Amino acid sequence: MKIEKPLILVTNDDGITAPGIRALISVMNQIGDVVVVAPDSPQSGMGHAVTINNTLFCDHVVVNQNEPQKEYSCSGTPVDCVKMASRQILDRKPDLCVSGINHGSNSAINVIYSGTMSAAVEAGIEGIPAIGFSLLDYSMKANFEPAKKYVKTIVENVLANGLPKGVVLNVNIPKLAEKDIKGVKVCRQANAHWVEEFDKRTNPNGREYYWLSGKFINEDQGKDTDEWALQNGYISVVPTQFDLTAHQFIEQINNWPLND
Amino acid sequence: MKIEKPLILVTNDDGITAPGIRALISVMNQIGDVVVVAPDSPQSGMGHAVTINNTLFCDHVVVNQNEPQKEYSCSGTPVDCVKMASRQILDRKPDLCVSGINHGSNSAINVIYSGTMSAAVEAGIEGIPAIGFSLLDYSMKANFEPAKKYVKTIVENVLANGLPKGVVLNVNIPKLAEKDIKGVKVCRQANAHWVEEFDKRTNPNGREYYWLSGKFINEDQGKDTDEWALQNGYISVVPTQFDLTAHQFIEQINNWPLND
Repeated sequence: MKIEKPLILVTNDDGITAPGIRALISVMNQIGDVVVVAPDSPQSGMGHAVTINNTLFCDHVVVNQNEPQKEYSCSGTPVDCVKMASRQILDRKPDLCVSGINHGSNSAINVIYSGTMSAAVEAGIEGIPAIGFSLLDYSMKANFEPAKKYVKTIVENVLANGLPKGVVLNVNIPKLAEKDIKGVKVCRQANAHWVEEFDKRTNPNGREYYWLSGKFINEDQGKDTDEWALQNGYISVVPTQFDLTAHQFIEQINNWPLND
Repeated sequence: MKIEKPLILVTNDDGITAPGIRALISVMNQIGDVVVVAPDSPQSGMGHAVTINNTLFCDHVVVNQNEPQKEYSCSGTPVDCVKMASRQILDRKPDLCVSGINHGSNSAINVIYSGTMSAAVEAGIEGIPAIGFSLLDYSMKANFEPAKKYVKTIVENVLANGLPKGVVLNVNIPKLAEKDIKGVKVCRQANAHWVEEFDKRTNPNGREYYWLSGKFINEDQGKDTDEWALQNGYISVVPTQFDLTAHQFIEQINNWPLND
């Protein structure tokens, strides 16, 4: 009897050659048949953007000929990559989509700006169980080794248990040695925001321009949040949904005199 | 006694010269002091993208010198425009941010791809009451006149009542004559998705490329949904949140053997 391995779609937002996706591919090759469809250039902060006013290129590539996965490099956003994979490249619906491992945090409100998480959410919208993984280290030299064991455990749990309809997982991993990671905590998204600073400069033609930067402000000290877990040595797992309805306020707003 | 008018930030994703934002500005000028910070080019489908790997330009412009509002044209995404407005342009926190009126629907899952709604959500994250408006007509020649009365009513209600913390409004308006609009319904986001079709072509150099298009599939027949309201002649108002946590599944996933 042939036991079919799960079909796993891998993508990210740092681009197909980023160390984070290479680490994720190496773990997924231990679990299933892997197809990579990832951006040909960095797409950090692209959120749930899709390319509708421009063309898309998507090419079969071989990044390392000793590895078994099939790989495609795509000119679009992370969400484009998932759509391209599921509608154009794959013969069947994948059993799982994993995105990352992102170089940098996607905890708290970062989930909404994150190309990594938007790719996972897009897979979720298409009914594919999906997980976004992020390591709290922005460096391109980040060490992904301590994360690998936990990535494998979480993926195996999702394959074994499935995910509730309409839910994907947002997994963030602290920048710690493996021995210092205390375990995995299922959390809620902390209530936090960015306070932007615009760095104003003048270009050689005398025109003013800006670089966007900012500070992350966490105003939520709850011990059930992803921020608390990460600050205390745990890997955070937030079940994340794409029904954005604030159901609890429908009745209240329905009492407004909107039809008077 | 000087009565201070509300300070209203106006943005959109179709670009600062789109007829939809011009209609929205004309209504807002009846209500408050208006500052426009909007993209210098179409940004549809940009979702919650922010510009972190490129520079931003933002210039004071005069689109119509007979109108009282101040206007700024920005090279970034709709979310960039909101950040630029609140951190760089405005002297004080606006009393309201309105985005649109979008040329085309942002009902159901479209909320997540929409630059219009992402601008409103960004304002919400910054604690500014915010509303995204969309008309179900993609044409640049769309007629925004029937929408104006309802836009004004909804804005006046939000200014009078405020919005719950963490909630913005997603307002969609059917393409109907004013007499045929039945009223306003507060709804939940319908459970729907897109099935993409990639239109494959070959460029003059022989390289294959794609255009993303697709069909919108609504699998949700609930009469409490935005899709139902719009199909039945109502304006839909969905209270929309940016805490993406699927709180109801935290306990279930916590029972997985993630720490064994």
